[in-house]
Amino acid sequence: MKAVHNYIAENKDRFLEELFDLLRIPSISAQSEHKPDMVRCAEWLAAALVKAGADSAEVMPTDGNPVVYAEKIIDPKAKTVLVYGHYDVMPVDPRAEWNTEPFEPVIKNGRIWGRGADDDKGQLFMHAKAFEAMCATDTLPCNVKFMLEGEEEIGSPSLYKFCEENKKMLKADIILVSDTSMISLNTPSITCGLRGLTYMEVEVTGPNKDLHSGLFGGAVANPANVLTRLVSSLVDENGRVTIPGFYDDVRELTPAERKAFNKAPFCLRNYKKALDIGDVEGEAGYTTIERTGVRPSLDVNGIWGGYIEEGTKTVIPSKAYAKISMRLVPNQDYKKIGKLFEKHFKAIAPKSVKVNVKFLHGGAPYVAPTDMPAYKAAEKAIVDTFGKKPLPFYSGGSIPIISGFERILGIKSLLIGFGLSEDAIHSPNESYGLEQFDKGVNTIPLFYKYFAESK
Amino acid sequence: MKAVHNYIAENKDRFLEELFDLLRIPSISAQSEHKPDMVRCAEWLAAALVKAGADSAEVMPTDGNPVVYAEKIIDPKAKTVLVYGHYDVMPVDPRAEWNTEPFEPVIKNGRIWGRGADDDKGQLFMHAKAFEAMCATDTLPCNVKFMLEGEEEIGSPSLYKFCEENKKMLKADIILVSDTSMISLNTPSITCGLRGLTYMEVEVTGPNKDLHSGLFGGAVANPANVLTRLVSSLVDENGRVTIPGFYDDVRELTPAERKAFNKAPFCLRNYKKALDIGDVEGEAGYTTIERTGVRPSLDVNGIWGGYIEEGTKTVIPSKAYAKISMRLVPNQDYKKIGKLFEKHFKAIAPKSVKVNVKFLHGGAPYVAPTDMPAYKAAEKAIVDTFGKKPLPFYSGGSIPIISGFERILGIKSLLIGFGLSEDAIHSPNESYGLEQFDKGVNTIPLFYKYFAESK
Repeated sequence: MKAVHNYIAENKDRFLEELFDLLRIPSISAQSEHKPDMVRCAEWLAAALVKAGADSAEVMPTDGNPVVYAEKIIDPKAKTVLVYGHYDVMPVDPRAEWNTEPFEPVIKNGRIWGRGADDDKGQLFMHAKAFEAMCATDTLPCNVKFMLEGEEEIGSPSLYKFCEENKKMLKADIILVSDTSMISLNTPSITCGLRGLTYMEVEVTGPNKDLHSGLFGGAVANPANVLTRLVSSLVDENGRVTIPGFYDDVRELTPAERKAFNKAPFCLRNYKKALDIGDVEGEAGYTTIERTGVRPSLDVNGIWGGYIEEGTKTVIPSKAYAKISMRLVPNQDYKKIGKLFEKHFKAIAPKSVKVNVKFLHGGAPYVAPTDMPAYKAAEKAIVDTFGKKPLPFYSGGSIPIISGFERILGIKSLLIGFGLSEDAIHSPNESYGLEQFDKGVNTIPLFYKYFAESK
Repeated sequence: MKAVHNYIAENKDRFLEELFDLLRIPSISAQSEHKPDMVRCAEWLAAALVKAGADSAEVMPTDGNPVVYAEKIIDPKAKTVLVYGHYDVMPVDPRAEWNTEPFEPVIKNGRIWGRGADDDKGQLFMHAKAFEAMCATDTLPCNVKFMLEGEEEIGSPSLYKFCEENKKMLKADIILVSDTSMISLNTPSITCGLRGLTYMEVEVTGPNKDLHSGLFGGAVANPANVLTRLVSSLVDENGRVTIPGFYDDVRELTPAERKAFNKAPFCLRNYKKALDIGDVEGEAGYTTIERTGVRPSLDVNGIWGGYIEEGTKTVIPSKAYAKISMRLVPNQDYKKIGKLFEKHFKAIAPKSVKVNVKFLHGGAPYVAPTDMPAYKAAEKAIVDTFGKKPLPFYSGGSIPIISGFERILGIKSLLIGFGLSEDAIHSPNESYGLEQFDKGVNTIPLFYKYFAESK
């Protein structure tokens, strides 16, 4: 293991230079103008994995963005690790709030700044480089397969079919994923729970054209006003989602589970200070950790309608829209929730407007058992590099495909993420600490070692 | 008068060609990029008025867009008509919904299509051409002054000061304005009431940066969700504005007034059909005509926050915004209403967010007496061209400066507009009927004649 860690230390600067090349590709999956960047990014990664030591690497087409698949088989009888990551990134708006160019990474204050620095290019690249270090030092103890997709941020629409069609190729003992965060560098953690997601878009149509708000105001339903009424009614004054049936399948924690759950370190004062908010807000009767970890939620991710530029326009818009997503917990079914949402939204719309409801994407919640060999191996590896036993952590985030892997491939995922909340993923000024990268790339080979040794 | 009408008939095609030149100038006052177009438009108009017969015409600077002032004094003892109009136009968004280029006017189905075709370039140009016809045929019976501003659509911020500073120059017996509509060509009308306006913008700030809606969703107040809550609460289930004190100064109509008011022809079925809406919506206990004519209202003119582009982004936005305007009726004070709005909006905001409230612009309601000589002269002129006595009409719209004229200059305005609701002013596909233009330009010289003859 010393040889591996030395190799990493000696090649650290080159690793970062390579990562910067990867970060410069604006692979935004949500925006179709970036289609060519997606292909370019996939090709870049395939080449990088071959250089790192893979037997082969392919850019495999799908109905959407391609999947990069690479493998190195050292022994058909050895354990196999399937590394999953995604090379697509979030859009960069609001662009004006970035302090640096989102796709021109820079190092400042010990951190790499740029879109994807953490999520997920920075994290997946640790796996590529840990793999390279093990190959170069001839210490790779497992077969390794890489599956890197370009559609995670839009709900992995093509990867389900890809898994269905390539079950044999993807056969593995564990799926290794770094696309999550730790509580902090002082409180390392392994994510053992993810929320599910149902992402909807609603369109409210009032009059068949934009109207003068003076000539018609007060007599015609304004779809922007109606939208605020409908959307605000989706959450009640206790922070509970009002969609009938929404909580039917939610697994409630036992008092003992809640007690254990709330043992994770959390300081409400610091939390409010970091976000600069006067108060938190959420479902009555639950703590902040519970609200994001084990309770479902409903958020407006975008809302728009009417005149939204400089100055004023006295208009009643013809249409108003909102993008609304719900985070789900075991045992909520994301498709069922989408149907309940649609039914409810249509039911509450007044006769004065028409509504259109679209399901955009979704995924099931996921729970990783803490007694599986991969979890134990990760625990040991983290103890070695962090000097502390990691806590099991329930993240509020969603990686919809993770539950898909279990359903389609029958393989559990180990979520060993090295992100931190300060990385500001999905936000302007995303960053990834050099220490996080370093800790990650050194921890991964230890995981392989302990996992290979486990029974 | 026959000579005038013949002149108009003979020069009709040229009048339209000239109007088209005027419509081609994209003089959008709300968007600062169009500053040079405003000046160009003002210069074009000054030149046009001199050509039409004015003794002089000036482009007079203000703190904002310039005012075009022109005059022709035939006799210091004769009556003086001050023609007011505005050469600025509304923005053109949503651009995609236009069937033709907004600033490349075309004639189709007997109508002129383009931004400003009615509001107010088409209407003010009728006055320029009626003036030309009277000059050319030596039949002008009054002194004429033109005051054409470039900021009406943004609340005439500079014209108040302009009037204060030029009281003597602007001295007149009546202000003549064509910036309103008639009920229909079969039911001509003269606008004798305008609603006032208070236009606000609100900003709701939650966390200090955009957040990942998975990691924080359910625990942090989402300003877009909060905005829908706050905005929807501004109007109750009876369609009444909930701002304390909002109705305090509203003049309630007597039962007799209400009865008279509702005699104006109105067909709810056609109204709903024309707008393609399943139902109307407004203040309980009032008819649609009352809701727009004599009752105040509150409309969201624009709302935005979060991710509003293609696809999905799982974000809790840091900020969300709305532009909200209220139409006011006698005797509501638009500044007082702005203050009540701000106080109320701040009071209802929860501790979990910060709110910022801005007053964008406003104006007082206006009532024109139906017994003044100018009203009687207009009534006669319309009888001559339409063959029917016009009805007095309370428009729901606002021309804030009209009440300003009365306050500053001590002059009443006569609102003789030739627009129709189908002109779709402020909307995509604005148009103005050739018949409306023709009726207007022929009616105006008759007004001058009867007004000159009145005592």
